[in-house]
Amino acid sequence: MKEKKNIVFIAQSLDGYIADKNGGLEWLEAIPNPENKDHGYAELMSEVDAMIMGRKTFETVLGFSIEWPYKIPVFVLSNSLKEIPVALEGKIQLLNGSPKEIVAKIHEQNHNCLYIDGGNTIQRFLVAELIDELRITTLPVLLGGGFSLFGSLIEPIDFDHIKTEVFLDQMVQSHYRRRK
Amino acid sequence: MKEKKNIVFIAQSLDGYIADKNGGLEWLEAIPNPENKDHGYAELMSEVDAMIMGRKTFETVLGFSIEWPYKIPVFVLSNSLKEIPVALEGKIQLLNGSPKEIVAKIHEQNHNCLYIDGGNTIQRFLVAELIDELRITTLPVLLGGGFSLFGSLIEPIDFDHIKTEVFLDQMVQSHYRRRK
Repeated sequence: MKEKKNIVFIAQSLDGYIADKNGGLEWLEAIPNPENKDHGYAELMSEVDAMIMGRKTFETVLGFSIEWPYKIPVFVLSNSLKEIPVALEGKIQLLNGSPKEIVAKIHEQNHNCLYIDGGNTIQRFLVAELIDELRITTLPVLLGGGFSLFGSLIEPIDFDHIKTEVFLDQMVQSHYRRRK
Repeated sequence: MKEKKNIVFIAQSLDGYIADKNGGLEWLEAIPNPENKDHGYAELMSEVDAMIMGRKTFETVLGFSIEWPYKIPVFVLSNSLKEIPVALEGKIQLLNGSPKEIVAKIHEQNHNCLYIDGGNTIQRFLVAELIDELRITTLPVLLGGGFSLFGSLIEPIDFDHIKTEVFLDQMVQSHYRRRK
């Protein structure tokens, strides 16, 4: 059985935004990637058992008008959604509650290594001390405003740097583990 | 004569703060540095002709109760300061005006490659499109609040990644050049 671990894998601007002032994500596509390299995503997917995302991220993914992109079980956090699209039955489950309750429910289903996605969800899980690893890819643009990856905390949280790689000469990806 | 260039060299937390909620800088000293490595500071000092800092940064440096640490001419930006400490005569000059005016005055003194320091000053110079290079060292801590390195911008600013190095296994330093 895998170690219980919650991982954030996300891209930010140099000034720490994950979406621009209009909620847009086009800036993520600004760096030419002719060979369609994946920058650690396949590695992440080979490690995690399931994914947690907030409602807004869920709706963003649905808005892409692509086939549902996740092969692992996805848990969508929402207090308002009551049913899931028929096409996604068996692929997603709705959950609500505190981050601790949510993680406990998912562990009960024997999913231990979890990919945590979505700005609000990441911030809630950080506050609850439930993020074990950060894998952050920084793109070389100052957006000057938008939705921040990180929010306020009562107390600082220390991490240890694990590794840093540069992709496509432009994107700096650093992995950090929470110090315990 | 050196190329006219303005460089930022600064450390931030993982969440983009250059000072903690109390204005403190102690978190910068959290990583053991037994050999007192300098992480690019000597390299920077060999490149720059002069330094620009805001009044708050100036007062912070004075508050360290150490000998004045800069061997290059320092221009302190202030609308309120009228005189400089006697001990610093010949070492610093007071300036005010717009970032463009300030840089022009310093170029007139044949200082071309400038180190720009201090949160407010960096933000003003970025807005004025007067920052050519960013050299940012990220420490592995989420402070959860404080003084942000970057502020609001009307338009995004694109940079190119030049290089990234990891110091003491923990600090990730990336150099960026503004795309023109």
